[in-house]
Amino acid sequence: RIKASGLKLQLCTNETQATRESFVRKLRAMGFDVSVAEVTAPAPAACRLLKERGLRPHLLVHDDLVAEFAEVDKTNPNCVVLGDAAENFTYENLNEAFRLLIGMEKPILISLGKGRYYKETDGLKLDVGAYMKALEYACDVQAEVVGKPAKRFFESALAELGVPPEQAIMIGDDIENDVGGAQQCGMRALQVRTGKYRPSDENHPKVKPDAYVNNLAEAVDIILQQL
Amino acid sequence: RIKASGLKLQLCTNETQATRESFVRKLRAMGFDVSVAEVTAPAPAACRLLKERGLRPHLLVHDDLVAEFAEVDKTNPNCVVLGDAAENFTYENLNEAFRLLIGMEKPILISLGKGRYYKETDGLKLDVGAYMKALEYACDVQAEVVGKPAKRFFESALAELGVPPEQAIMIGDDIENDVGGAQQCGMRALQVRTGKYRPSDENHPKVKPDAYVNNLAEAVDIILQQL
Repeated sequence: RIKASGLKLQLCTNETQATRESFVRKLRAMGFDVSVAEVTAPAPAACRLLKERGLRPHLLVHDDLVAEFAEVDKTNPNCVVLGDAAENFTYENLNEAFRLLIGMEKPILISLGKGRYYKETDGLKLDVGAYMKALEYACDVQAEVVGKPAKRFFESALAELGVPPEQAIMIGDDIENDVGGAQQCGMRALQVRTGKYRPSDENHPKVKPDAYVNNLAEAVDIILQQL
Repeated sequence: RIKASGLKLQLCTNETQATRESFVRKLRAMGFDVSVAEVTAPAPAACRLLKERGLRPHLLVHDDLVAEFAEVDKTNPNCVVLGDAAENFTYENLNEAFRLLIGMEKPILISLGKGRYYKETDGLKLDVGAYMKALEYACDVQAEVVGKPAKRFFESALAELGVPPEQAIMIGDDIENDVGGAQQCGMRALQVRTGKYRPSDENHPKVKPDAYVNNLAEAVDIILQQL
């Protein structure tokens, strides 16, 4: 409905357990007409950053994400890229990433998000942010976070759309990563009362959405009414 | 030599990969005449704390440490005790400890130390502090640290000796955990220029030892000369 109305659409996800291709395949199977070019995700953003700065990563990421880094030189690593590696977060892999970092003159840790935890069908899981904190503490460094809520991440989504922030609206369920991040970038932001949303979000000490909507369909209704 | 002179001696270790029994066995094999009662270690300190506060721990510790918690009720846990679990730091075990914590009304995380990393024959390893930071971040709690440099830990060593802090001297190689911790407690502290010692410790922004010694034998010489 958004696309049919002539508005531009970009999906901003912090998904790092799969390539954009597989993410889009899942959405298409649900009936959403989206393409890979309409998805802004942390791994491609990290690839651009690596290329710009001549960095060669050691990857501690999910097996299904590795393909996003196919074009990147990974020999003789001079930084570590951390994603939600899930089963790949083994004691051995964490020590390996740590040893590489601590051996660098100036350790560079790039983290594909900083989520605390998430829910899967078999229960809550520690997210990439927890492992990022472990490595930050051990190496006494601060990670560079790619993905929401990084300003740069929203800016690259806006660049894809070719619109300035004041002409864009973010819709999301995460008060800090979606709403706070987009507002920091000069966009307006709606919070949907679904998914990660908790009633306590409405008393958040720092972030206040421009409006609440009960769900994504209602957000679309409201946006299309303004045209 | 210290004990033969009539001075009292207590060993303060942050070792959490083995029971005091096995720690003492190792020292005796090296020719040091010490007993289990002369060792202050984090696990027994944690046991006292658990008992005092009616806490029943879920243990995420090294297999060889579990025996220290034999007397503690571990059914229906209402806190998590974290040690240097080494190979037990699996993705599954970390998620399990996290789920227990996040499910508590007020999560209680007790950490047997907060070291960043340590060296073993096969290389550097992440220490308990890194995993503590991961769980702290994911659950938005602050761990209670048992072991050096906690004031309470040095106080319990002094209680074992039956002397006030101003009559005790700490000898250690770790500028923050040994020297800083003991001084915070009102003791004097010598730093040995062996082990963990690094020349940069002598410019530490916050901690200044009462004196430096080249090694443990020299520390003993100097102390015995004062008698």
